[in-house]
Amino acid sequence: MKDGDRGRLLLVPNTLDHGSEPVPIEAVLARGVLEQAAALRHWVVEDARSARAFLKRVAVLTPLAAPLQEIAIAELPRPRKGSGQAPPAAAWAALLQPALGGHDLGLLSEAGLPAVADPGAQLVAAAHDAGLRVLALPGPSALMLALAASGLDGQSFAFVGYLPQDAAARERRLRELEALSQRQRQTQLFIETPYRNAALAAALLAVLQPSTRLAIACGLTLPAGWSRCQRVADWRRAPPTLPDRLPAVFALRAD
Amino acid sequence: MKDGDRGRLLLVPNTLDHGSEPVPIEAVLARGVLEQAAALRHWVVEDARSARAFLKRVAVLTPLAAPLQEIAIAELPRPRKGSGQAPPAAAWAALLQPALGGHDLGLLSEAGLPAVADPGAQLVAAAHDAGLRVLALPGPSALMLALAASGLDGQSFAFVGYLPQDAAARERRLRELEALSQRQRQTQLFIETPYRNAALAAALLAVLQPSTRLAIACGLTLPAGWSRCQRVADWRRAPPTLPDRLPAVFALRAD
Repeated sequence: MKDGDRGRLLLVPNTLDHGSEPVPIEAVLARGVLEQAAALRHWVVEDARSARAFLKRVAVLTPLAAPLQEIAIAELPRPRKGSGQAPPAAAWAALLQPALGGHDLGLLSEAGLPAVADPGAQLVAAAHDAGLRVLALPGPSALMLALAASGLDGQSFAFVGYLPQDAAARERRLRELEALSQRQRQTQLFIETPYRNAALAAALLAVLQPSTRLAIACGLTLPAGWSRCQRVADWRRAPPTLPDRLPAVFALRAD
Repeated sequence: MKDGDRGRLLLVPNTLDHGSEPVPIEAVLARGVLEQAAALRHWVVEDARSARAFLKRVAVLTPLAAPLQEIAIAELPRPRKGSGQAPPAAAWAALLQPALGGHDLGLLSEAGLPAVADPGAQLVAAAHDAGLRVLALPGPSALMLALAASGLDGQSFAFVGYLPQDAAARERRLRELEALSQRQRQTQLFIETPYRNAALAAALLAVLQPSTRLAIACGLTLPAGWSRCQRVADWRRAPPTLPDRLPAVFALRAD
């Protein structure tokens, strides 16, 4: 499976239970994916500690190719807050070194698919620039599960990341997204840091039009998970209770 | 797992090999998902024939709750071309009847997640309106695999469905998407019917700016699958060969 003497970059999905009680890994990841993850001896990851925990869970079902302490795990550069500086190109080349030297290399984030609403895209871009083969392995995407479960239009949608934290700026952004959703007939998806979920939900109910359909999906793939979609007017009659430790995905569509 | 005496609507992911040589189902779907699919006796599906083929594949790994011929499989209403009319609300209520009567009900499309770039969203919306619990089971999403493998920005993206078939309208739409991508710093994803993939790729290379980054992912999760991202100027030096039977996902990001 090598391209000449180069390795591939494999994007390996993680479970969605980061920070929660672990679910059985085989409940959300395919056996074929676990086997491909177990075969890797070189990784670039969002967080080394959670990557080792992931590999221990994999090992229960599929023997790893090498003892855990012999598996090379490098971390993605953390964005330096406020510096506005991207990591130098040499950083990506160094991380890709195992693949350039002929070994398959795994990319793993703390939850879900790497490089989607998560770090890693720059490494993937560097891999393409270096002519490496890139292979994304199938796994859970909280965004797509939330979208599917919402019943909102899945033929036209956008993910816009995080909303501003400042209340006035958030209100402006929400009105903008609502107008965009109506004009473009496009479902708008966004996320929030779990401990701010309840504050965001309150802002949504305060700002959005009563007729706008709002979907909230919380703790997807977890036993406590749920998803619900109704018009803002109906949410107002029975506001949701959002736990402060479970990840949530929000989606809106204005008529 | 019942909500009082109501069943749930379970969104069951399918493999991505529709129309191709089947891949091992355990290569892309988790055991837990296969078990939940095998337990269902009532389904609403995009296509009954492919749903039965799916259940036969599931049955090889996990015994079905009932013989296949005793499993109730209803089809989603097909959109009537040109009529512009939505199916009547009563149609959705009829399809949801098993869940209203206390049985868990599965929703399945021909490939990937139901209701994402696929029919089914209206049934999910009707389930929410009827107060049913909706549960999306994790599985492969071609859109998210393509996005992850592209290395393009996964923090801000839109899926815009199909482009116009008419060459002039398609060119206008591509220029619009390119401008939108640049202005909003948003990756734009779109798809095409497989036999028109090569024509779309040619149009992309003809219309887009040389500096725009263009990702093409073809046959994801299949042995023949590949994904590649580079600037349009580089694609022009070695235009891609797109098979006319494999699904592809396209993504662009203008600087």
